[in-house]
Amino acid sequence: MVRKVLVLNGPNLGRLGSREPDVYGSTSYAGLVERCTKLGAELGFEVEVRETNDEGEMIRWLHEAADGELPVVINPGAFTHYSYGMRDAASQRTAPLIEVHISNPHAREEFRHTSVISAVASGTIAGFGIGSYELALRALATL
Amino acid sequence: MVRKVLVLNGPNLGRLGSREPDVYGSTSYAGLVERCTKLGAELGFEVEVRETNDEGEMIRWLHEAADGELPVVINPGAFTHYSYGMRDAASQRTAPLIEVHISNPHAREEFRHTSVISAVASGTIAGFGIGSYELALRALATL
Amino acid sequence: MVRKVLVLNGPNLGRLGSREPDVYGSTSYAGLVERCTKLGAELGFEVEVRETNDEGEMIRWLHEAADGELPVVINPGAFTHYSYGMRDAASQRTAPLIEVHISNPHAREEFRHTSVISAVASGTIAGFGIGSYELALRALATL
Amino acid sequence: MVRKVLVLNGPNLGRLGSREPDVYGSTSYAGLVERCTKLGAELGFEVEVRETNDEGEMIRWLHEAADGELPVVINPGAFTHYSYGMRDAASQRTAPLIEVHISNPHAREEFRHTSVISAVASGTIAGFGIGSYELALRALATL
Amino acid sequence: MVRKVLVLNGPNLGRLGSREPDVYGSTSYAGLVERCTKLGAELGFEVEVRETNDEGEMIRWLHEAADGELPVVINPGAFTHYSYGMRDAASQRTAPLIEVHISNPHAREEFRHTSVISAVASGTIAGFGIGSYELALRALATL
Amino acid sequence: MVRKVLVLNGPNLGRLGSREPDVYGSTSYAGLVERCTKLGAELGFEVEVRETNDEGEMIRWLHEAADGELPVVINPGAFTHYSYGMRDAASQRTAPLIEVHISNPHAREEFRHTSVISAVASGTIAGFGIGSYELALRALATL
Amino acid sequence: MVRKVLVLNGPNLGRLGSREPDVYGSTSYAGLVERCTKLGAELGFEVEVRETNDEGEMIRWLHEAADGELPVVINPGAFTHYSYGMRDAASQRTAPLIEVHISNPHAREEFRHTSVISAVASGTIAGFGIGSYELALRALATL
Amino acid sequence: MVRKVLVLNGPNLGRLGSREPDVYGSTSYAGLVERCTKLGAELGFEVEVRETNDEGEMIRWLHEAADGELPVVINPGAFTHYSYGMRDAASQRTAPLIEVHISNPHAREEFRHTSVISAVASGTIAGFGIGSYELALRALATL
Amino acid sequence: MVRKVLVLNGPNLGRLGSREPDVYGSTSYAGLVERCTKLGAELGFEVEVRETNDEGEMIRWLHEAADGELPVVINPGAFTHYSYGMRDAASQRTAPLIEVHISNPHAREEFRHTSVISAVASGTIAGFGIGSYELALRALATL
Amino acid sequence: MVRKVLVLNGPNLGRLGSREPDVYGSTSYAGLVERCTKLGAELGFEVEVRETNDEGEMIRWLHEAADGELPVVINPGAFTHYSYGMRDAASQRTAPLIEVHISNPHAREEFRHTSVISAVASGTIAGFGIGSYELALRALATL
Amino acid sequence: MVRKVLVLNGPNLGRLGSREPDVYGSTSYAGLVERCTKLGAELGFEVEVRETNDEGEMIRWLHEAADGELPVVINPGAFTHYSYGMRDAASQRTAPLIEVHISNPHAREEFRHTSVISAVASGTIAGFGIGSYELALRALATL
Amino acid sequence: MVRKVLVLNGPNLGRLGSREPDVYGSTSYAGLVERCTKLGAELGFEVEVRETNDEGEMIRWLHEAADGELPVVINPGAFTHYSYGMRDAASQRTAPLIEVHISNPHAREEFRHTSVISAVASGTIAGFGIGSYELALRALATL
Repeated sequence: MVRKVLVLNGPNLGRLGSREPDVYGSTSYAGLVERCTKLGAELGFEVEVRETNDEGEMIRWLHEAADGELPVVINPGAFTHYSYGMRDAASQRTAPLIEVHISNPHAREEFRHTSVISAVASGTIAGFGIGSYELALRALATL
Repeated sequence: MVRKVLVLNGPNLGRLGSREPDVYGSTSYAGLVERCTKLGAELGFEVEVRETNDEGEMIRWLHEAADGELPVVINPGAFTHYSYGMRDAASQRTAPLIEVHISNPHAREEFRHTSVISAVASGTIAGFGIGSYELALRALATL
Repeated sequence: MVRKVLVLNGPNLGRLGSREPDVYGSTSYAGLVERCTKLGAELGFEVEVRETNDEGEMIRWLHEAADGELPVVINPGAFTHYSYGMRDAASQRTAPLIEVHISNPHAREEFRHTSVISAVASGTIAGFGIGSYELALRALATL
Repeated sequence: MVRKVLVLNGPNLGRLGSREPDVYGSTSYAGLVERCTKLGAELGFEVEVRETNDEGEMIRWLHEAADGELPVVINPGAFTHYSYGMRDAASQRTAPLIEVHISNPHAREEFRHTSVISAVASGTIAGFGIGSYELALRALATL
Repeated sequence: MVRKVLVLNGPNLGRLGSREPDVYGSTSYAGLVERCTKLGAELGFEVEVRETNDEGEMIRWLHEAADGELPVVINPGAFTHYSYGMRDAASQRTAPLIEVHISNPHAREEFRHTSVISAVASGTIAGFGIGSYELALRALATL
Repeated sequence: MVRKVLVLNGPNLGRLGSREPDVYGSTSYAGLVERCTKLGAELGFEVEVRETNDEGEMIRWLHEAADGELPVVINPGAFTHYSYGMRDAASQRTAPLIEVHISNPHAREEFRHTSVISAVASGTIAGFGIGSYELALRALATL
Repeated sequence: MVRKVLVLNGPNLGRLGSREPDVYGSTSYAGLVERCTKLGAELGFEVEVRETNDEGEMIRWLHEAADGELPVVINPGAFTHYSYGMRDAASQRTAPLIEVHISNPHAREEFRHTSVISAVASGTIAGFGIGSYELALRALATL
Repeated sequence: MVRKVLVLNGPNLGRLGSREPDVYGSTSYAGLVERCTKLGAELGFEVEVRETNDEGEMIRWLHEAADGELPVVINPGAFTHYSYGMRDAASQRTAPLIEVHISNPHAREEFRHTSVISAVASGTIAGFGIGSYELALRALATL
Repeated sequence: MVRKVLVLNGPNLGRLGSREPDVYGSTSYAGLVERCTKLGAELGFEVEVRETNDEGEMIRWLHEAADGELPVVINPGAFTHYSYGMRDAASQRTAPLIEVHISNPHAREEFRHTSVISAVASGTIAGFGIGSYELALRALATL
Repeated sequence: MVRKVLVLNGPNLGRLGSREPDVYGSTSYAGLVERCTKLGAELGFEVEVRETNDEGEMIRWLHEAADGELPVVINPGAFTHYSYGMRDAASQRTAPLIEVHISNPHAREEFRHTSVISAVASGTIAGFGIGSYELALRALATL
Repeated sequence: MVRKVLVLNGPNLGRLGSREPDVYGSTSYAGLVERCTKLGAELGFEVEVRETNDEGEMIRWLHEAADGELPVVINPGAFTHYSYGMRDAASQRTAPLIEVHISNPHAREEFRHTSVISAVASGTIAGFGIGSYELALRALATL
Repeated sequence: MVRKVLVLNGPNLGRLGSREPDVYGSTSYAGLVERCTKLGAELGFEVEVRETNDEGEMIRWLHEAADGELPVVINPGAFTHYSYGMRDAASQRTAPLIEVHISNPHAREEFRHTSVISAVASGTIAGFGIGSYELALRALATL
């Protein structure tokens, strides 16, 4: 049976490709969806990629994942730094949840806060561009 | 005349009962609604219990309370730690507003921020499980 | 059988009523004793209200409560900010212990320390004037 | 040709006039809209004033501005202190973006965070009441 | 009657134009004087532009403004970060005092101190090059 | 009529003269009492010098002073750094209260806390040995 | 000739044995007295063990030790973290003073303050249960 | 022989009386000069009162005092918080130097820095209005 | 042609399997070597796994990698928190360098320092047990 | 059977006796070895004293102790302040490990870090010169 | 052709020799001038040594150096810790500027600020007494 | 007689010339050795240049220098920020020890620690490339 996986993206990530390419690489959001879906299929996952700018919607998706015991790959975007609401939602799950970042968040020094979600994630993968998502899917395949 | 009271709950609180019972107790959200409504009726209040994962909706409810001069019992959940928008909305009211927490927020040490709403609340009650809400309603009855 | 409850007050609280009324309300200490005793009787408690300016005496009263398994309502007053001795004494009890404050301690910004006792209290109630004690007694009645 | 300008307001600003007049002045939100529209017309701008309590909506408006290369005047309200999502959205634009505040945010000492958006704004204007918006429109006229 | 306005510049600003043009723009100090004087005349002000590298002289000019009830536009330059003497002098005035900066001081991260004068200024305008002064003069015209 | 003045000394000060003379000078506690009493008589005061190692006793003396509207000269000794109970007691008075120190507390760098009582004192005199008390009495004579 | 040694215990230590045995071990206070007295006799000391919950009494005992040039073994209990009064009293002695702790104070992370007395102690022994006292007595025998 | 004493005032103090009377009292600078001169004469001092807004001038006056071994009473005004140059000059003297403040600097919370000169002063007197200077002169008379 | 990859392990990692299995999982160091070598072979890498307790040796291995332009997978172990020497060595390479951790370093709260090497790494993978190494090797295969 | 005990010394301790005698006392390293060996023999231990300036070697010795279940007395010297590698190695043991210091590390104020190893040690003994080692051996004899 | 070099000294340095000789050595300011001039001549420089207690004068000298492209040796004295005005002036130059200190500023622990000028200096030389100036002149000769 | 001087280099410095030339200049380590040896010979020194990546070896070299009373020029490289072991070794010497840095360490902002060795060095020279070593040798020639 094919297992469903949610790939959840936080604010501004839906605009990938229209945004500072030196920081985020040149892949568009459509390319991200395609690559995740394709690799997911190879690994036996039905991957559903979503993006939202709303904290409440992100929280509801995490509830949906918790109810369905769905594994989650999450790129929290700017929520990384302050959304304790997202964090509490993420901590309720039983299935794996992997935090990914396209670039290295430690290099964005202007933020004093580090990730509020790392402590409740199964693991963290950062710095590989869209490849961070693909590594996360591979990690799910072995967990 | 029966006075209306709003009991407002922040993110993830609607899932009470499906979440870490050692931290939050075993009462479900439905039980919370029932207990608040019942005690409210005894005290002569028409209690309306709401929950939201959206900061904007919480802000609008606080505006509604300010316009109607309705007393508020609020469990901000994770908003406790960062929602200055909720705080500004709460500071506009003329009726009492009581902050409640199911467990003791001081014990959740991973958060550096303490409550951003305490300074504008009439009072704070924390650590009594669902009983925190009931004590708040009793407090409203005497204010 | 009537259960005994200790209501313990820290430094300067015995002078309630002679002190800045805009901060502490106009109720005198005698009024506090009367209101606590009266409500206690209604709830089936024998309430004994004490006040001390001596940390050592406060510690001995907490030992007495621990030995007698007596519930405690405690307003630590200025001890809130530094008396780790009081805190250690409070952590030994098996019966409930509720921390109360007349006004909101978060508004007294000149203190860098927050409460050293909250972490070992069953719950905290702050900001309701003398009503904070009454809510604590009601909470004890349901614990 | 008339150039469109977005004037975006964060949480609680739609209630201007119903809120602490000693801090925010006595102008209502309707007055703000009228004054901005009127001065905009004089300067050759089609000014559209919006307000939202939702971070996600604010982010989408900033995306709209980025796509249309529209100049922006933004009063982030409480978002000033924590919405890194709004900040990331604001950093993508090519047209000018001016941060305004009705009063001086440095005087609201209870907030530890200063503005998270200043670093990506073209400029900042604070402390002139509704006049802050008008100065921003004038600044846009010369940029 | 023409009202006199003092435009006061702190250390190094007299060398505008001979200094890092990528940070401060290419306008020279003479150009600054000319633009302020010209716009002032249009607005009905007699604008007098001064610059000093001496804290004591800046303090005396602020005393002069206080005695004459003259509005002030001040670019404190490096004094922004430490001159509490200038700040105390600025806090004595009754006429408006507007703090301006050519570039955004928040971007000059090497300084730990932020502006010591903002808290006593009528308003702050930063980031518009020489335009910051012009906006300040316009603001004075409406105050 | 002769006015009574309380000169209150905190922990260890009763041993003056038996303690590190390079820090505290060579005057004994008896000498301190004598000098204060003598100067007080000259100034028309009935000076009563007390010393205690007990925080509770110090608090009660401050209550006594508040009730009798007696001026106070207080050398809090080590209480300077942590006794918020003493501070609250000191803030209730209506007569003047002057904080004195024999040596300069700023030189005792090992303490991170500075004086918790300065903010509620009428004034502070430090660094003149026993002379600090005498200057305080003279100050009382002119207040 | 037998030399007298004072073993001084701070707040709550008199209840040893009735308190969290996983932290403090199972030895009672009576056992502590017995073991210290017995080993003291072997080492040629007349050991007197005392305990107090009062800071003032602790200070007076330290004065007594200073006057009699008696060696001191002190377990300050909670006073460790804030009693600068005890510290000043301890710094006056000429005989050795050894600070002991039953468990490792560094493991009680909730305290921000570390020991205020270590800097004036001859040495510190921590983490050996009642054995900490015995090691301190042996250390005195060789000093 | 009459001994000369310098009374040195830092920035803005020459305007005493024209400045916020609720903070600084109603005495004018002329009154300050008169009172210091008069009391000085009584005490056998030739008092010379000076004021400057220039750090360099203050430093030179301190050099003059050091060369002439003249006692100094200094109210550093805003220099209190940052003038390490003044501090170094003050540390070279052999005669007494007393730091005075009209009001209590600890109450001016907006400054993070406390006095940079206290550590090198003979003593400090704060909070007695113009009386702070008079107490300083009396202190000089006994040193 | 087969490409060589260095897998470098810092202090204590050679004892994997003999150490707290609840933190580090039950795989032994030999198992780590085997799994890395095996997966490396599948991916076309010649993987060489090394471990050292010596900072100097780790630095020399990083020099060797830089000279040979060899990709590196590095688990710095405790060096993560303080070895700026390792960091400088890592920053010289031209080939990819991936930082891995068996468990989540953010959960080891006792360390104030976070990773000193993340800022110079190509990417970071944490929290997947031995799987972190395997994901790193897969990442190298796609870089 | 004689039990082996390792006495491990960190950097620079091998030079004991050639180094600042006012801080470290006059005993040489040879004297330290002799005294530890002698007392160990009396207590029934085979004591082996080692010293190293290499963190890696210290780590390997701690591994050796862990493998042999040997009790350890360790003076980490300067490693106290930063060697998390040593700390991780020390936390793996099952036999007792006692941290000793010749002088009081709290008096060496220039270091911001306190001991990184205390939290994983059985106990700590500091301030008794070479006697600290002897007390540690006695402690081992009773553990 | 002989190249001119400015040697600029900040507050109190003109009194060298009359000031704490244990900190600053016994060379007088005249000796400093002579040694710099003499060595300068040997190296082919026309050295002009100046000293000022005025920040504004120091700034003007740095402007003079910038205009004349003159190399600068600067001992900022107390300005080291707070004169951002001096710093901005120093950052405009094109010729080398070397910061010197007679003693090691890191040893003067009472200052929280370190040098504000180091970041814009070509290099820093500290701790060699008057020799620091001579090394700086030699450095200029090779730059 | 020729005096021997040790020039000691910390981690990664042996690779000078193969590393980021924009930070460290283009001189190779061989060039460094040659220049130091050559200038040393001119100054009458036998200069021995060493480099190590091992903290323990650096410590032993400093012991060797202490034993032979050899002057030391040390570039601690990354050890600058954390090697308290190196620091303790350096503090034992009687001959001069000069700390050098090729570039300005204050510009490498990512490090929170500043130099741990400066406080025990005779002097510090930074920012002159290889010239820093040469200036240090010249300084030794005059000490």
